[in-house]
Amino acid sequence: MKNKPLILVTNDDGITAPGIRTLIAVMQEIGEIVVVAPDKPQSATGHAITINNTLYLNKISDDNSPFLEYSCSGTPVDCVKFAVNEVLKRKPDLCVSGINHGSNSSINVIYSGTMSAAVEAGIEGIPAIGFSLLDYDWNADFESAKKFIKKIALEVLENGLPEGVILNVNIPKLKEKEIKGIKICRQAKAMWMERFDKRKTPQGKDYYWLTGEFVNQDKGEDTDEFALEKGFISVVPVQFDLTAHHAIQTLNTWKLNEKN
Amino acid sequence: MKNKPLILVTNDDGITAPGIRTLIAVMQEIGEIVVVAPDKPQSATGHAITINNTLYLNKISDDNSPFLEYSCSGTPVDCVKFAVNEVLKRKPDLCVSGINHGSNSSINVIYSGTMSAAVEAGIEGIPAIGFSLLDYDWNADFESAKKFIKKIALEVLENGLPEGVILNVNIPKLKEKEIKGIKICRQAKAMWMERFDKRKTPQGKDYYWLTGEFVNQDKGEDTDEFALEKGFISVVPVQFDLTAHHAIQTLNTWKLNEKN
Repeated sequence: MKNKPLILVTNDDGITAPGIRTLIAVMQEIGEIVVVAPDKPQSATGHAITINNTLYLNKISDDNSPFLEYSCSGTPVDCVKFAVNEVLKRKPDLCVSGINHGSNSSINVIYSGTMSAAVEAGIEGIPAIGFSLLDYDWNADFESAKKFIKKIALEVLENGLPEGVILNVNIPKLKEKEIKGIKICRQAKAMWMERFDKRKTPQGKDYYWLTGEFVNQDKGEDTDEFALEKGFISVVPVQFDLTAHHAIQTLNTWKLNEKN
Repeated sequence: MKNKPLILVTNDDGITAPGIRTLIAVMQEIGEIVVVAPDKPQSATGHAITINNTLYLNKISDDNSPFLEYSCSGTPVDCVKFAVNEVLKRKPDLCVSGINHGSNSSINVIYSGTMSAAVEAGIEGIPAIGFSLLDYDWNADFESAKKFIKKIALEVLENGLPEGVILNVNIPKLKEKEIKGIKICRQAKAMWMERFDKRKTPQGKDYYWLTGEFVNQDKGEDTDEFALEKGFISVVPVQFDLTAHHAIQTLNTWKLNEKN
């Protein structure tokens, strides 16, 4: 097929996760795909990269495979860097990351390996989308999401994305028919109220598990949390220019350069 | 002393790094300090948190120590969560992270453990600053930075910070007298051109080191890169609302909800 788009597929739950297998199936309907994904789960690794350790890249696919597939010992961001620099012969037309097992809405975007992989692709100038399903179960039902994922990916391929913008797509845990539609949203103001679950090793040493409760502090009706609660798929355009431009004027009133 | 501010100190180079020891010395002149920092170097860990592994918190200080000090087995972000939830009796008045050994200007902010710790404090509602010196050397000269760090910290304590804003401070590798001043800037548009240094293990297996070259694509004179190049300290206000608000209108013109 002529002019088939080249699509890079990655995730943070690891190359064997059902989420990425579903995403691969959808993307195969759209273009030529190449998979480079972590060889083990890498949830909540954020935008970590591996600079103080060695990295391994293993080819999984063989000559009979329908597409190229590599596993990588590094983080999701490492995977994208490997794909662009060592695996792909040209810049892909699209990078999709996920489908994450669990939400990456609101503040979760910042901790998310899934989204960081997509953001890294965005930094490299590749239109990129992170997909997440609001179901942490390894055996979650990803089927209901397929139609919507295909639609969003096709729209991005058709329209491109504004420079420096990546899409963060979250899908409610609902049957296909129950999903009300797709909404463009802003990131809700929310946070995690952490709790450390303190335990003792068999040798009597204290150790902890990080756990916590999600708190949505945002009553806005234009947020991703609101859309998801109402049964919509949320699409948040995300940027990697972290500058709080609105704060520059205030800071310029400070006496930072006065002699004292 | 009455009304002494409570200051949390952390970093990503690990609790023994000369950078954090300098920062501790400066903060001791300002307030009551508590240190919670990683027990080993955690550079480029981004906003990673530890959810699939156990965490250890070790008290380093004793009854004779001038301040409370803990090392933590987790990431810089884990350290802040530990400090807030397990160590500190009240919310601190300020969190400072660093001094990082090396630049966190422009796109480096997104990979930086130093800045992610500061951002995490910001999410928790604590005024926060990340400090970085443009010198990767373990034995870098941090002395020249002291006066400026103190000034910026005092300004933040006096004025507070706009909601959801954290400061990313980068300091050029110059003698105190050569530093021209402090400039409020925006994050320069820049990226890393990666290169994977491919080698063979003694057993003949391929492995890689991630390396690369920094490319500043931004000719603006209001950027952190420009200020640093001209001998100024750069201060970029950073936010954790990643929404690309300017892109929402464009995305709303897409045909995402049309039946086909």
